[in-house]
Amino acid sequence: MASVDVPVALLGYGTVGAAVNRLFHEQAEDIERATGHRLRVVKALVRSLDKEREFPAAPGVLTTDINEILDDPSISVVAEVMGGVEGTGETVLDLLRRGKNVVTANKQLVARRGDELFAAASSSGVQLRFEASVCAAIPVIKVLRESLVVTNVHSVLGIVNGTTNFMLTAMEAGMSYDEALADAQARGYAEADPTDDVTGADAAAKMAILATVAFASRYALEDVAKVGIDTIDPLDVAAASQLDMVIRLIGQARLMDGHVDVRVSPALVDKHHPLAAVEGAFNAVMLQGDAIREITLEGPGAGGVETASAVIADITSVIGTMGTGFLQNDPVRRTLPRLPVGEHRSPYYFHLSVEDRPGVLSRVADELAQRQVSVSRLLQHQSLDGATLHVVTHEAREGDLRDALTAIAALPEVKRAPQPFPVISSRGVTELGWA
Amino acid sequence: MASVDVPVALLGYGTVGAAVNRLFHEQAEDIERATGHRLRVVKALVRSLDKEREFPAAPGVLTTDINEILDDPSISVVAEVMGGVEGTGETVLDLLRRGKNVVTANKQLVARRGDELFAAASSSGVQLRFEASVCAAIPVIKVLRESLVVTNVHSVLGIVNGTTNFMLTAMEAGMSYDEALADAQARGYAEADPTDDVTGADAAAKMAILATVAFASRYALEDVAKVGIDTIDPLDVAAASQLDMVIRLIGQARLMDGHVDVRVSPALVDKHHPLAAVEGAFNAVMLQGDAIREITLEGPGAGGVETASAVIADITSVIGTMGTGFLQNDPVRRTLPRLPVGEHRSPYYFHLSVEDRPGVLSRVADELAQRQVSVSRLLQHQSLDGATLHVVTHEAREGDLRDALTAIAALPEVKRAPQPFPVISSRGVTELGWA
Repeated sequence: MASVDVPVALLGYGTVGAAVNRLFHEQAEDIERATGHRLRVVKALVRSLDKEREFPAAPGVLTTDINEILDDPSISVVAEVMGGVEGTGETVLDLLRRGKNVVTANKQLVARRGDELFAAASSSGVQLRFEASVCAAIPVIKVLRESLVVTNVHSVLGIVNGTTNFMLTAMEAGMSYDEALADAQARGYAEADPTDDVTGADAAAKMAILATVAFASRYALEDVAKVGIDTIDPLDVAAASQLDMVIRLIGQARLMDGHVDVRVSPALVDKHHPLAAVEGAFNAVMLQGDAIREITLEGPGAGGVETASAVIADITSVIGTMGTGFLQNDPVRRTLPRLPVGEHRSPYYFHLSVEDRPGVLSRVADELAQRQVSVSRLLQHQSLDGATLHVVTHEAREGDLRDALTAIAALPEVKRAPQPFPVISSRGVTELGWA
Repeated sequence: MASVDVPVALLGYGTVGAAVNRLFHEQAEDIERATGHRLRVVKALVRSLDKEREFPAAPGVLTTDINEILDDPSISVVAEVMGGVEGTGETVLDLLRRGKNVVTANKQLVARRGDELFAAASSSGVQLRFEASVCAAIPVIKVLRESLVVTNVHSVLGIVNGTTNFMLTAMEAGMSYDEALADAQARGYAEADPTDDVTGADAAAKMAILATVAFASRYALEDVAKVGIDTIDPLDVAAASQLDMVIRLIGQARLMDGHVDVRVSPALVDKHHPLAAVEGAFNAVMLQGDAIREITLEGPGAGGVETASAVIADITSVIGTMGTGFLQNDPVRRTLPRLPVGEHRSPYYFHLSVEDRPGVLSRVADELAQRQVSVSRLLQHQSLDGATLHVVTHEAREGDLRDALTAIAALPEVKRAPQPFPVISSRGVTELGWA
């Protein structure tokens, strides 16, 4: 096949943009082998032409004028690597309407304005790809859309925020929350303001995208229920270890009886569960479906080169399928309702600080039993000013558990309202077979 | 896009073939959404028309005459799901030469005759895809070829045989080798003759394919060095646990200084390593490369529906990219030499049964030190008739280790020649970041 240069434009030329340009140069041969084409960055939209760049673009490439990209008919693929939602969204819409394929690394843009963007892409007959918007180089979008076509995915379970996973791994090793946060900041994993990470907001955006793609039904970012790791007590970390579990910030997207439920919260994960083995700043996503049972993808969920690698994979996929209409359409094809509040079912863990008086355990157990919440494991620790009960339940309705905990919090012996976390059990060996 | 029926032919209509046909029916809507087409099995080559089938084909579909497929110009995609190497290879070659795209689930065929088959596909301008030939529904081939285009993959580490992983997990839980094998056979994971699984032959074929795709250089099946799980001593299983490790049958394909090394052997895997968390009959493949650091894919590595899911994913990829030439070419583009024997480097574990006499440890240590093999961990257990030393080394040249072990085996106090296994360490937390 004759090699033809394919001109590519970038929106943004920061760490990711520069890495895309560098990889186009360094891996030109591999790209040509895969696609039959050489890719070349011909324009990159920036705010300032004068800023120092990691891998400087060729003369004439940087521009502050979007019209140089919009009006250039030779450019059919644009990679958006500048971030932002409002202004960036308008620019991407303009590009799609002008018939340009767009690849984006922007999770906030896809999670917040996906509907408009995909509609514009469809009506222009171009592609909008977004692999890099979720978990960087881990190819979870491609796998969901191209490899799991016939598998009816019904559950996505993920560790999709590396910063908090790094912090939780450090806390497992004995650090306090504040020490772990300071360490994550010192290493550049956490921002000076870590709110988006520790409250679960970043993970929520990724889970909204994953749920939308997995279930082919748009799931709004603001509907993702989230609990952050800032709610974890050091007692929980110690108890998890004694229970042969670890604490992870888990995103769960589930399709149950035609309803979708998406949530992010700290969870206790059995040490034999694949997600328990995800340590440090890594991410992992477990996809469960009819034909595949489950497939887990793990890797670094952030980083400039990793993100650039995913952007380029999307660009080569656009080029390889341009004009065929393959898999370019909106991932959405139906509208599924949200699971009613309280209907989520899971085993749960919580701990209770109680005064050490006779009858307290019986009262707690009674409140649980009245609401069909049964206890599977119990640890009790004495302390100077009372006792701590660590409780693991069997699978229970979340609403029942909350009602029980409200009643328990009102008991005179109970010192603080307990914070429940879901428990991710490991699969038994028999469930792992291919019988 | 107007929906057009795409006629597909199958070679074979056993468990996998019937599952492909069933999924075409049940998931027709999902397939149409992904590709714009409806897929229909129009012919299926079988040996006998009378056999009872799981999901019976429509009247007229089953045939014993390959010419009904070869001569039908409306059939442009054929899925080979019948197994076999010699006769099947000739049939697939005929199909490719007649301009038909082929998707195969046959690891022996791809590992043994890949060169001829890809050459035929290239010269006919058609695609040959083989996702289902390695680890069933785990999309490792697609990820390697389409998502990791620019990443220079230099290492593939895999648990690619579910039967032996099931047995090793059972042995960890206390079963003997014979009990674990009987259990695997009773559950249908192991054949009556388990030779291909327990000797590593099945894993070797998969690793040859993975090495060929990852490094774009054909790696011959007969060059894969293999040690089976039949060499494992119960003492090793117990020691692994005390060392906070587990034993897994690991395939390793490495690109080092332009040389390729592919091997399959039992290995001790640190409990914090992602592959240690792979339990039961599951498979996992860890890909390491420049731009991604590492990505691990885990899931069920066998099963009729799982394999059918991968076959259909390949068929939809063929249809989605037909005529564009995207990624359809031979994965091979260069010829890399094998790593010279002995040049492999790894930390190792072995155990020694010795008579409990003064000086034996010193003599063993001396033989190791003379060959630059240094010890990182040592366990000693007394028994009635002597002692057992469990040794974990730092990274060493395999040739040096083998020389040292030969000398050690010749010591009068040493009862049996030791069997070394590589050790897979976990990454430290600092290596897990995205700095």
